[in-house]
Amino acid sequence: MSDASINKIGKSTVPRTAISTSDEHSITIRGEDLCRDLIGRISFTDYFSFLVTGQKPSRGDAMVLDACLVAIADHGMVPSVQAARMTYAAAPDALQGAVAAGILGCGSVILGASETAGKLFAEVDAEAKGGDLQAAAQKVVRRMREAKQPIPGYGHSLHKERDPRVNRLFEVAREAGTSLRFIEIAEAVESAIPAIVGKELKLNVSAAIPAVLLGTNFPLRGLRGVPILARTAGVIAHLVEEAESPSGFALAYQATRELVYEGPEARK
Amino acid sequence: MSDASINKIGKSTVPRTAISTSDEHSITIRGEDLCRDLIGRISFTDYFSFLVTGQKPSRGDAMVLDACLVAIADHGMVPSVQAARMTYAAAPDALQGAVAAGILGCGSVILGASETAGKLFAEVDAEAKGGDLQAAAQKVVRRMREAKQPIPGYGHSLHKERDPRVNRLFEVAREAGTSLRFIEIAEAVESAIPAIVGKELKLNVSAAIPAVLLGTNFPLRGLRGVPILARTAGVIAHLVEEAESPSGFALAYQATRELVYEGPEARK
Amino acid sequence: MSDASINKIGKSTVPRTAISTSDEHSITIRGEDLCRDLIGRISFTDYFSFLVTGQKPSRGDAMVLDACLVAIADHGMVPSVQAARMTYAAAPDALQGAVAAGILGCGSVILGASETAGKLFAEVDAEAKGGDLQAAAQKVVRRMREAKQPIPGYGHSLHKERDPRVNRLFEVAREAGTSLRFIEIAEAVESAIPAIVGKELKLNVSAAIPAVLLGTNFPLRGLRGVPILARTAGVIAHLVEEAESPSGFALAYQATRELVYEGPEARK
Amino acid sequence: MSDASINKIGKSTVPRTAISTSDEHSITIRGEDLCRDLIGRISFTDYFSFLVTGQKPSRGDAMVLDACLVAIADHGMVPSVQAARMTYAAAPDALQGAVAAGILGCGSVILGASETAGKLFAEVDAEAKGGDLQAAAQKVVRRMREAKQPIPGYGHSLHKERDPRVNRLFEVAREAGTSLRFIEIAEAVESAIPAIVGKELKLNVSAAIPAVLLGTNFPLRGLRGVPILARTAGVIAHLVEEAESPSGFALAYQATRELVYEGPEARK
Repeated sequence: MSDASINKIGKSTVPRTAISTSDEHSITIRGEDLCRDLIGRISFTDYFSFLVTGQKPSRGDAMVLDACLVAIADHGMVPSVQAARMTYAAAPDALQGAVAAGILGCGSVILGASETAGKLFAEVDAEAKGGDLQAAAQKVVRRMREAKQPIPGYGHSLHKERDPRVNRLFEVAREAGTSLRFIEIAEAVESAIPAIVGKELKLNVSAAIPAVLLGTNFPLRGLRGVPILARTAGVIAHLVEEAESPSGFALAYQATRELVYEGPEARK
Repeated sequence: MSDASINKIGKSTVPRTAISTSDEHSITIRGEDLCRDLIGRISFTDYFSFLVTGQKPSRGDAMVLDACLVAIADHGMVPSVQAARMTYAAAPDALQGAVAAGILGCGSVILGASETAGKLFAEVDAEAKGGDLQAAAQKVVRRMREAKQPIPGYGHSLHKERDPRVNRLFEVAREAGTSLRFIEIAEAVESAIPAIVGKELKLNVSAAIPAVLLGTNFPLRGLRGVPILARTAGVIAHLVEEAESPSGFALAYQATRELVYEGPEARK
Repeated sequence: MSDASINKIGKSTVPRTAISTSDEHSITIRGEDLCRDLIGRISFTDYFSFLVTGQKPSRGDAMVLDACLVAIADHGMVPSVQAARMTYAAAPDALQGAVAAGILGCGSVILGASETAGKLFAEVDAEAKGGDLQAAAQKVVRRMREAKQPIPGYGHSLHKERDPRVNRLFEVAREAGTSLRFIEIAEAVESAIPAIVGKELKLNVSAAIPAVLLGTNFPLRGLRGVPILARTAGVIAHLVEEAESPSGFALAYQATRELVYEGPEARK
Repeated sequence: MSDASINKIGKSTVPRTAISTSDEHSITIRGEDLCRDLIGRISFTDYFSFLVTGQKPSRGDAMVLDACLVAIADHGMVPSVQAARMTYAAAPDALQGAVAAGILGCGSVILGASETAGKLFAEVDAEAKGGDLQAAAQKVVRRMREAKQPIPGYGHSLHKERDPRVNRLFEVAREAGTSLRFIEIAEAVESAIPAIVGKELKLNVSAAIPAVLLGTNFPLRGLRGVPILARTAGVIAHLVEEAESPSGFALAYQATRELVYEGPEARK
């Protein structure tokens, strides 16, 4: 027998967390007693915000977070739901695997834009330094175009007009009384796009989420978690349906009805 | 070029869903207009229940579902959180991959017991036919012991007494006014265990969840989704922390400090 | 600050491995020096077998393992490949996530039957005790039917005759000179099925794999890894193609062309 | 009932593949008959290359690919193996989920550098235009430093000298007679680093893999698949061991023995 320990990677060798601790009698989350202070006293949405930030959201902050989670939890048989349903059809014993397959499609092209759009808005905010938002938005969009970067959160394959969820999320933010600063920024970017990019690209839901959430206590660094948590709920609903009324293999069958094989002819 | 379509698997070739549909102007979820009727009007917890069941939960049903989600969203640096943090440390560009790694540990040993415990309770319920719960519980537990099956949802490595979350969830169900039938069943099973299994095994949180949720409109077939959705929130919070204050590699380093290699000695 | 360590689960608290160890100068795998004894001296297939079993396979054993891996690495645009391609289209920055999505479909319905068929063959082998295989196969199949279990590895949606890969794998085993014992068992099961099950179900590739591999040094407990490793190669090839010639979103589009929404009509 | 089809995303609506097609009697892979031409006639390594490239590798190309796969399949209880073993311990029914968790750690920090190092070498190659490699390497490294990018594939936490696998892979390439062009480039980069970066960073195995593989027929765009396929084999071996001799929970226990909770004190 000999020592097979792996070497340390990175500087710290002592793991740390500020989220939770427990002993035989209690579980402490961010300084509160889970059983006494949280279960039955706080909604799941508020608790998610509390886990991420260490602060309980205000009523307005929570309204906006709820609205975002509801807005993107489901959008029908999108590719990631199809992936989840096909995975479940093939591996019905492992619901967690099918949910994981669904989440793995929350990437840079689909849903991941929430975070990159949030960074763009933060950049415009910093650029403006409290001054002219329109000029700052133009400057940042021009810089992105010059670097050949896409403008994250603008344009949608289905919704050529502004995605209907966008206006509704903005309304909710107004009703909730949270800061509208990042909505103004998002709209400044939207109106800067045509002259610089050469076509209209309307705000889509991935940009609307940071536009409203950055006006609450929810942090930029947690933005990407919002569509992932939301979609998990939608994917679970689809998998509960799949278990009762299977469509996974039917989707896979339909998908290939016009599939073209363009490799070499089979050798004789 | 030739046809490469795959053959159909299973009976139906037309995919179907009752969850949602959309066109350019609107998204319909279970018959409601997402933007007009749902965003800003329904909490994420209620929406999850609506997506899964097609019905909006009563206030009491929603209280119980919120309590369950809060109860199991986080329990510190458990193995699946460690797996998620190590994955994120190695692949920080793909938050969705680290969340998926965390969810993949919601299996039969950890957290998956919610569903199997729910099936056990449904079996006791059916066995009792409205009659003696205690006798029905004994019968079912004895049958499981004879088949050498473990009793899902009883016993916990840390909490030798009843897990503190159990009593709190039962309290919430009483406050919420939902049916207490399955709590009675869960306690009948708990009191049947010592004589049949030969030791006390206290109800743990995985049994408490079906015990309270089966008294609401939440279906047995959706039970396994509850810990998965809850844990997704906890894992995201840990990954937001990991991004700011890394512990993933430190955990991996600590884990192997006493690792023993017990393979053959290296050849000279 | 306080202690947040998790409690031990299970009996042992010291992790152990017989697979590998390393120091600053060398990596030892199963007692061999990776750089001196293995890289450039052993094929990947032999190395896989060596990692799993601790023994280098004979030439015949390796031929059979290679044949199995080649037989199931790819079968076109099957559901798990579609899931992987859709995931990659949505999250192109994370190849590992798309591969993971592809692997998650190697479950009990698709590909996972390799292991369960292997267990069935081991049961027939034990039942026969060196005596009449045909009688033993009938007994085991009858027992499974009575328990309402499906016969794993028999029947295929596309190949109504014996899957062409089956006979080829059996030929390779004969050429390789490995034990044919489990091929005989697999054929005994196939011929026992019609009288007991009431229809012909031909051996498929998931049964052929344990039938040939259990005649080599490859262990029953490693069987499920074989289709997973093989499919990983196929999925990677599809994702390399997807990166150059995208089909993921086209598959998702085609899949839903006939999708039926059967939920409630949208409220006015 | 109404139409719920999703809209097309991207330009093409017809999926295509050049990899494989099948009918009831045969499976065609890249123009060859799987059963007649491939099973039993080609190694898994050669088949992987054939699936990815459409060409069978030369003997030398295959030697190099085998060497790369063997070099990185296992390196002990690294974080991704720990994640896989913990996942398996929690969800032992779903081997595929534990393998997926292991693969999800093949990201940009660990193992993913194979592809980015390959791109770096291709850039140096293009910059040199057949001329002075040393000057080209300096130019590219300087450009990366100015853009504050790390140099992928150089430096290793354990191996302060050149990783022993690097020299061995270079030896294999020489024995195999494949092009040494990209080895020269990799060494030119290594010798350019000290003056520009201010410290020695030795070639690690993630750079050695593209350095040898780009001298074969294996394409740059497939590089990231090589560590993923290799690690799948190693992870499967660890999971077969985990099933017999569990260490997953012991790893998780050890990992948190010194865990510090640095959140707020529990409220009284």
